[in-house]
Amino acid sequence: MTFLDTVKFDEQGLIPAIAQDAQTGRVLMVAWMNKEALQLTADTKRGVYWSRSRKKLWHKGEESGHIQVVKEIQLDCDADVIILQIEQLGGIACHTGRQSCFYRTLDDNQQWQIVEPVLKDPHAIYEHPKHDH
Amino acid sequence: MTFLDTVKFDEQGLIPAIAQDAQTGRVLMVAWMNKEALQLTADTKRGVYWSRSRKKLWHKGEESGHIQVVKEIQLDCDADVIILQIEQLGGIACHTGRQSCFYRTLDDNQQWQIVEPVLKDPHAIYEHPKHDH
Repeated sequence: MTFLDTVKFDEQGLIPAIAQDAQTGRVLMVAWMNKEALQLTADTKRGVYWSRSRKKLWHKGEESGHIQVVKEIQLDCDADVIILQIEQLGGIACHTGRQSCFYRTLDDNQQWQIVEPVLKDPHAIYEHPKHDH
Repeated sequence: MTFLDTVKFDEQGLIPAIAQDAQTGRVLMVAWMNKEALQLTADTKRGVYWSRSRKKLWHKGEESGHIQVVKEIQLDCDADVIILQIEQLGGIACHTGRQSCFYRTLDDNQQWQIVEPVLKDPHAIYEHPKHDH
């Protein structure tokens, strides 16, 4: 019996994981984990996910250097969502070069507005932009 | 073309929605929305979800009174996760009677520990506990 037995993975064997800045509370990104990614995250205290597009483990920051140092791992009442309280090295979690993936907000006219600047050109972060996501 | 056209719902027509306390940044719960729930949330500025267990719209607080006043709706880069910045009326988001659904944390021995008190007995909140979730 390990902590993984409590966690409810979906039909694809995955669970959504929210990466939240441990200092500011800002939600930086949401990605998916399989059992191995969650175990590795717990063991190494680094954010490790399952890339659904690339169908392989994704050690966040492996290409960008934007590693996530995990301070705490939280589980919800239904045991089907994880939160990682993290320190985001480099201050950029999003593959667009922004601090957070949640850079769009719905305005009063029900239009999405981009409210956050690009801190670094993705071409300067990745050899193949969109790769580290 | 409405804001909904930008949003990527999954094969079941759903998108995960994170409810975050607009003041404190605490993540209170994660639930699912279909198109109608998201439109209603935007129109009424109240948290409306799709209950996967009951297979119907779920106006959060309909039974408990723990309504969510929505201050802001955010969308991530892949357009497949929503954040609601909310004020949680009653101060309780979780059906267990806790402030947040994320009341468990992984300790140094990789065991889940409950680190948050029950504020109100679920039987005092719901006629049929586990119903409003």
